[in-house]
Amino acid sequence: MIGVYGANGFIGRHLVARLSAQSRPVRAVSRRFDPAFIQRHSAQVDFVEADLRQPLDMASTLQGIDTVVQLISTSSPGLQNAHAVADIHDNVIPHVEFLRTAVQCGVKRIVFLSSGGTVYGPKAPTPTREDSPTNPISSHGLTKLMVEKYIQMHGHVDGLSYVILRVANPYGPGQGFHKGQGLIPALLDRFHKGLPVLIYGDGSAKRDYVFIDDVIDAIEAAILLPQSDTRLVLNIGSGQPLSITEVLAAVEAASGYRLEREYITQRNTDVDISALDPSLAKRMLNWAPKTPFSEGIAETLAKANKRRP
Amino acid sequence: MIGVYGANGFIGRHLVARLSAQSRPVRAVSRRFDPAFIQRHSAQVDFVEADLRQPLDMASTLQGIDTVVQLISTSSPGLQNAHAVADIHDNVIPHVEFLRTAVQCGVKRIVFLSSGGTVYGPKAPTPTREDSPTNPISSHGLTKLMVEKYIQMHGHVDGLSYVILRVANPYGPGQGFHKGQGLIPALLDRFHKGLPVLIYGDGSAKRDYVFIDDVIDAIEAAILLPQSDTRLVLNIGSGQPLSITEVLAAVEAASGYRLEREYITQRNTDVDISALDPSLAKRMLNWAPKTPFSEGIAETLAKANKRRP
Repeated sequence: MIGVYGANGFIGRHLVARLSAQSRPVRAVSRRFDPAFIQRHSAQVDFVEADLRQPLDMASTLQGIDTVVQLISTSSPGLQNAHAVADIHDNVIPHVEFLRTAVQCGVKRIVFLSSGGTVYGPKAPTPTREDSPTNPISSHGLTKLMVEKYIQMHGHVDGLSYVILRVANPYGPGQGFHKGQGLIPALLDRFHKGLPVLIYGDGSAKRDYVFIDDVIDAIEAAILLPQSDTRLVLNIGSGQPLSITEVLAAVEAASGYRLEREYITQRNTDVDISALDPSLAKRMLNWAPKTPFSEGIAETLAKANKRRP
Repeated sequence: MIGVYGANGFIGRHLVARLSAQSRPVRAVSRRFDPAFIQRHSAQVDFVEADLRQPLDMASTLQGIDTVVQLISTSSPGLQNAHAVADIHDNVIPHVEFLRTAVQCGVKRIVFLSSGGTVYGPKAPTPTREDSPTNPISSHGLTKLMVEKYIQMHGHVDGLSYVILRVANPYGPGQGFHKGQGLIPALLDRFHKGLPVLIYGDGSAKRDYVFIDDVIDAIEAAILLPQSDTRLVLNIGSGQPLSITEVLAAVEAASGYRLEREYITQRNTDVDISALDPSLAKRMLNWAPKTPFSEGIAETLAKANKRRP
């Protein structure tokens, strides 16, 4: 059985919907669920409400799970580094406890969603390969990197199979807006409220965006890889970064509306360009991003007022 | 003023003795001090008892400090990975809090002692360069790596100057014996007690040993580097690893005694060979190890029953 942890979030909902549609045995775990989401999938999916910070609760959710997809993250790239210690408490320690419990409960593989946009840091060559140095300059990136390292330790010491997916900036229908969690949901939130779009810097900062369906393809491929001794760290991105200005132009083209801009002083933890080289994922997972940005953004806008997956 | 944190330990005592002999202004900080050590150096050194885990106490110790030498570490390479969470609590969080406090108190440079023997992990090419991948397989190595990453974040975000010294296995007079903290003190402890020497594995495992005076040379050079924007990660080792068997032979040659051996099943967190390439330290600090192993071990044995520095 596949355990999806953090199943009520943006990626989690899409993943549960996909796995459920394929009739795969799935246990969806989250601190709390949207009742409508449970209702849509309750025939196929085992829903369990549990908190990552409660190791005993976690152990009970892990019974019968072969593969864990770990999506839980309570930090975000935009949070200030002053929260570094709280981030270790909330985002490193529970994951480290969870990993040990998972190994003890017989989990064979973990698929972990890391942050392709923050683990490398500003000095990495772009497009960035997985063997580039990892020097994050945000607390979010540091906590993601640490969890990666603990997973790799369990891979070496306990034989745990893992696929660490360093995902670029995911976007798509159903992505909620939370402060500091990515340009596109923030931009669409301002757009739908009729407010000017807030731009950090001059609009030239480039990021790598990846459509949610493509992310789900990558997770699915990572779950289904046959070799039990798989130990991979893979970039999941387009390799073709877009500037904020290009993103705004694409939203304007897809929506037919002109967006108002408001420029804001850049945070010092920002990386001016972030672009992932996804060629290793192509080789190891036969994965490549399929959705052009113009299509992805059009679908996101079209479904903005429809129900979530 | 130079602040030496963890000043009552093996490296700390040697460093305080050196800096004190040079009449440099030094504050020595430790949870507790050996009264005889204070007495020897009290004319030159400002001794302060304080606990790293108490951020307010730490702030008061940082007043007037330009350069911090951070030697505090409560974990050790031999501890089981089951202590991973406790290690994060004890060895990562206090350091992360301390770093923020140090930056706020106006500290300009931190010299941090990291672990050259554990931060790289078993797959690094040897002799290992600083730009090799860092994939520790012990909790000790993971916590050291994390603290390195937080220091580097403060270097980028706050302009903190740093020299991270990835020290190989230090040895020398005055090194106390603590379970799991290195072959040489463990070996000498058994030797002085007339017990057989415990050997993990078959004696072929190779490690890089560096004599304490050479380590102190490196720390001194890191303190004195003139550029305020120095941001360095440097190996401090010999680059010439010795097997356990070779270490035993050297101790036998220096002491004139034959040592009894007792072989023990190898721990699975052991790296079979660990050797650091110190050429970057040569270039950046003009540092190289000066003490041949035979001389270092002879001096260690000769001073074994004399007073500590």
